[in-house]
Amino acid sequence: MDNNQTFATLSNHRSVRSFKDQPLNQNIIDQLVAAASHTATSMFMQQFSIISITDQATKHAIAEITGHAYAEHNGHLFVFIADQYRNFLIGKAANQSTELLGEADRLFAGVYDASIASEALTAAAESMGLGAVYLGSILNEPQQMVDLLKLPKLTFPVFAVAVGYPTSIPGQKPRLPLATIHFTNQYQLPNNYSTILDQYDATLTDYYQHRSSNVRVETFRHNINRQISKSPKHRRTLLAVLQQQGFLMHER
Amino acid sequence: MDNNQTFATLSNHRSVRSFKDQPLNQNIIDQLVAAASHTATSMFMQQFSIISITDQATKHAIAEITGHAYAEHNGHLFVFIADQYRNFLIGKAANQSTELLGEADRLFAGVYDASIASEALTAAAESMGLGAVYLGSILNEPQQMVDLLKLPKLTFPVFAVAVGYPTSIPGQKPRLPLATIHFTNQYQLPNNYSTILDQYDATLTDYYQHRSSNVRVETFRHNINRQISKSPKHRRTLLAVLQQQGFLMHER
Repeated sequence: MDNNQTFATLSNHRSVRSFKDQPLNQNIIDQLVAAASHTATSMFMQQFSIISITDQATKHAIAEITGHAYAEHNGHLFVFIADQYRNFLIGKAANQSTELLGEADRLFAGVYDASIASEALTAAAESMGLGAVYLGSILNEPQQMVDLLKLPKLTFPVFAVAVGYPTSIPGQKPRLPLATIHFTNQYQLPNNYSTILDQYDATLTDYYQHRSSNVRVETFRHNINRQISKSPKHRRTLLAVLQQQGFLMHER
Repeated sequence: MDNNQTFATLSNHRSVRSFKDQPLNQNIIDQLVAAASHTATSMFMQQFSIISITDQATKHAIAEITGHAYAEHNGHLFVFIADQYRNFLIGKAANQSTELLGEADRLFAGVYDASIASEALTAAAESMGLGAVYLGSILNEPQQMVDLLKLPKLTFPVFAVAVGYPTSIPGQKPRLPLATIHFTNQYQLPNNYSTILDQYDATLTDYYQHRSSNVRVETFRHNINRQISKSPKHRRTLLAVLQQQGFLMHER
């Protein structure tokens, strides 16, 4: 394990939101996408796509949708798409019924495939000294994203990942203790979950108070309670937009 | 890039389904889960869990559900769970409304988080000389999986990953050419998609015919058309079981 660079890279992940004014060259972009393409894929159906955003107006629109100004500045923006349209074309050409491609399990498979691929892309980038951040906030406006990227039916935007040369590397946020996320044989939170959360909240408070930037007073519980107290209005249209795109239409 | 072990590991992924009779020791299991825990997580809500299956009867039940006998033999079985229940308990203790935790975006976030974490676990395992295979087929029987793992509301099984010491390393299946999965600024399959598929089908046929085991005649199109022609009966209950678990109940 001593020289396991992969394990070190994976364990060292942190979100980098500020990048130098140095674009990724095409060779690096291709390598990152190639690493993403070799990940596991449900039933070998390869049901994800990636859209690189280079157009400034599109980047600006995504910055507006996400509320993250950095999305239109430096860093290469990859949008991950759950994609059953490519396979729909194959089924259609063979006069197959394509109804199953819109069902929940195939929607999930698109989301799995895109997500698994995104982590390979992120880890590959980090191994090259690049930094990355996920932008789940593209789904604050699901229909706008569909329109902006001209997404055909049976496709859906999952999230974006911005990759670039870091201006600095932030600290790593402590994660929940493993006892609260890893169980054996059945779902079973520890009996002392609340006490563990007390300790974890203290650890996280300490982290937020001593990190080099964006110092604040916050616990894990604060964050959860804030996140579940409200949701951007159009984020709640996600299910309707999924159905508009042809998903979840036919099931019992 | 020459010594980039991480990039090499990620680009070298292949599914390993046959493992030596050598269990993972607890230290390795903990390291793999720790690597998974440090991945990106939507809104820092840490909405996934992992259940390790060690009980032989449970492994047997999963082998029956998935149709994969190897699931009950060698290899350590990790089941990935989209988990909003842990956060539900936090909201409930604070007398917060927890309705948003069941909406489509939080269900997706659980699926993203679990999937991203699974790729980190898989890549970490591969970097240690271990092999891994995903079992999406646990969702052939969604309700049985929920019952078997005693999953509380607002949780859902995503897939399993089996990890072990490989008896042999299979070949790597060629993936779709990057031109068909990577676009710029908008969704746009190449005009010659059908011709590219012809070439890819020829490449894949060649691979299947020359690999060392499970030689067969198959193209990508064959696979897609087979997969969309039928679905295991209870797999089509996924949406209903999701709703049973408290997801997708409140949206317009």
